[in-house]
Amino acid sequence: MNDLSKRIHGSARQIEADILRSRKPSLELPVRSLQNVHYNPAKGFFSLGRKRKARTLTVGTVKTFAQTLKMIATSKSLVDTQEIATKREMYYISKNWGEARFLEQDESDTIMDDVEAFFLVNREQLGFVPEEKGGDVAGRLVILDRDPSTGKTLRIDCTKFGSGAYSVPISVEDLGFETSARFILAVETAGMFQRLVKHRFWDKHRCILISLGGVPTRACRRFIRRLSDRCKIPVYAFMDGDPYGYCNIYRTLKVGSGNAAHINEYFCVPRTTFLGVTPQDIVDYDLPTHPLKEVDVKRARDALKNDPFIRRHPPWQKALEQILKMGVRAEQQAFAAHGLNHVLEVYLPEKLKAPARFLP
Amino acid sequence: MNDLSKRIHGSARQIEADILRSRKPSLELPVRSLQNVHYNPAKGFFSLGRKRKARTLTVGTVKTFAQTLKMIATSKSLVDTQEIATKREMYYISKNWGEARFLEQDESDTIMDDVEAFFLVNREQLGFVPEEKGGDVAGRLVILDRDPSTGKTLRIDCTKFGSGAYSVPISVEDLGFETSARFILAVETAGMFQRLVKHRFWDKHRCILISLGGVPTRACRRFIRRLSDRCKIPVYAFMDGDPYGYCNIYRTLKVGSGNAAHINEYFCVPRTTFLGVTPQDIVDYDLPTHPLKEVDVKRARDALKNDPFIRRHPPWQKALEQILKMGVRAEQQAFAAHGLNHVLEVYLPEKLKAPARFLP
Repeated sequence: MNDLSKRIHGSARQIEADILRSRKPSLELPVRSLQNVHYNPAKGFFSLGRKRKARTLTVGTVKTFAQTLKMIATSKSLVDTQEIATKREMYYISKNWGEARFLEQDESDTIMDDVEAFFLVNREQLGFVPEEKGGDVAGRLVILDRDPSTGKTLRIDCTKFGSGAYSVPISVEDLGFETSARFILAVETAGMFQRLVKHRFWDKHRCILISLGGVPTRACRRFIRRLSDRCKIPVYAFMDGDPYGYCNIYRTLKVGSGNAAHINEYFCVPRTTFLGVTPQDIVDYDLPTHPLKEVDVKRARDALKNDPFIRRHPPWQKALEQILKMGVRAEQQAFAAHGLNHVLEVYLPEKLKAPARFLP
Repeated sequence: MNDLSKRIHGSARQIEADILRSRKPSLELPVRSLQNVHYNPAKGFFSLGRKRKARTLTVGTVKTFAQTLKMIATSKSLVDTQEIATKREMYYISKNWGEARFLEQDESDTIMDDVEAFFLVNREQLGFVPEEKGGDVAGRLVILDRDPSTGKTLRIDCTKFGSGAYSVPISVEDLGFETSARFILAVETAGMFQRLVKHRFWDKHRCILISLGGVPTRACRRFIRRLSDRCKIPVYAFMDGDPYGYCNIYRTLKVGSGNAAHINEYFCVPRTTFLGVTPQDIVDYDLPTHPLKEVDVKRARDALKNDPFIRRHPPWQKALEQILKMGVRAEQQAFAAHGLNHVLEVYLPEKLKAPARFLP
């Protein structure tokens, strides 16, 4: 039994003891909501406050209570056997729980969030893995994985994938890393990633390229986080120049999101800074633009008013105000107007030489 | 200059000659619509009929004509320099064409489809690559790619990625393959793929696993097509048991789609058969189900009436009628109700032993 397995065992023992002494068993869970969240720049992510709620066994809660215990039991067996289950599979497993089975996956997902928050771990550590895959990786990185049949260490060299890439698995908890890279470049679109790979950008600039493919999945964020922590290298984010790229993709990658504060600790990447496309880049590089949509304007205004991350960082406030004033947005593909490889021959090298122009 | 580059050159010469002799230059394009499509089971895909339309230079067509020529010129330079451009980048390149620039990407995409149909090639051969990435690959396959800096052949061994996978690049035209696999298993969901990878299903069953991640991208379909053709191995499709899995994902993978008939030749995979989940599997394996949604019922009825592929294959008609009668659908994750690994220890081995139960 590993540590987590022991903790699960301990909680179960306590509930058993309560029942044997004819006391009402109870589980204490953190309250998961924006009202119970703090932003501490030193920590670098939205973190959970102290508010807690108790789930006590009563006539009204008996089904939820049973489901919570059943799910805790399932996660213990996953941990003990090093097995994995997707959220959807977990829902189907419950079909054998008789009266306690879930009718909809929503119910099952909510209880899974509770169990995750109860043990203060991310659900991947409990063996529950997401449905979607992570991102793609190329460049100066050797990933250490284990061959499940022989137990031998596999060395996966990400410089050896040609035009292809290493695809991040759904669970990344056990991967190791070796790298001589100076930084990680996290790229929003698969098309831009492919261009940088084709021209071996990672070789000349000694870096690791990671394709996010829009809003990064949990597995992708966790991969970048573990990689940047273990190897102590910074992450530079290269995204579209619009409020969605700034306030959703980048903000979530760097500090996490409000409604999942109990796991931001594991999934945000505080070592990230924003390389571009900044509003000033749109001016400096004379990029073709599109007008801001109404939803962009609303998103930027909301962030200026309510987002604890933006409100702590005056350079971001200035950037959002600037883009609102300009009334336009620019995509990372827009550099193609100056020649297909302008982005990797001019823009990125110039930006990399001037990290002072990055946004925090 | 390679063959394609010479063909582009030849077409341009003809137009030049017309202009020099003061004749109206004209481009002849195939009509791209369902009315100009045939389904020939021997060929195995929807193919283009003989209807053609002429695009002649007139006052009314001058802009479109100029854009078509400019795009043809761009594709020649991409082919000659072995460069790539995404559809979005192509749109931005046009921003330097003065009056001929595209105002919306839609216009640019339509002209790209025309150019593709004009040369009867797929646009990847012209250097235009999709925005989205292809699928993930693990198992008994060595992919041969070229290191762009040294020109040396790279051997990418897909048995060596541990819990990760090889991520198919956006353009797969130049990849080579070596394999001892007996078949390719194309899997609809990333979660199921991860389970099969974790348990090295490809090792025991001597196969190649490919994750489609829902409706497969062009790059993914083209990759499977080239791999199955070159290595002469069959493809078994493992999808959800519902009309969407049957009539959309599977049908498109196998024979292509109606509105892109000029390229189905390159993107469909005629060597594919349908392993499951069939309607009979739902009965035989006692799978948990969900009721068919209205859109499922409509999709199945439409296919029975109008889909030339379904209408040619009585077993598919029976299957669709059966699922309509049952009124339920089942996902590939539903096997989890019988134990997480039931799918790889019982279901898949049983089905693989009885290819007669596959659907065509």
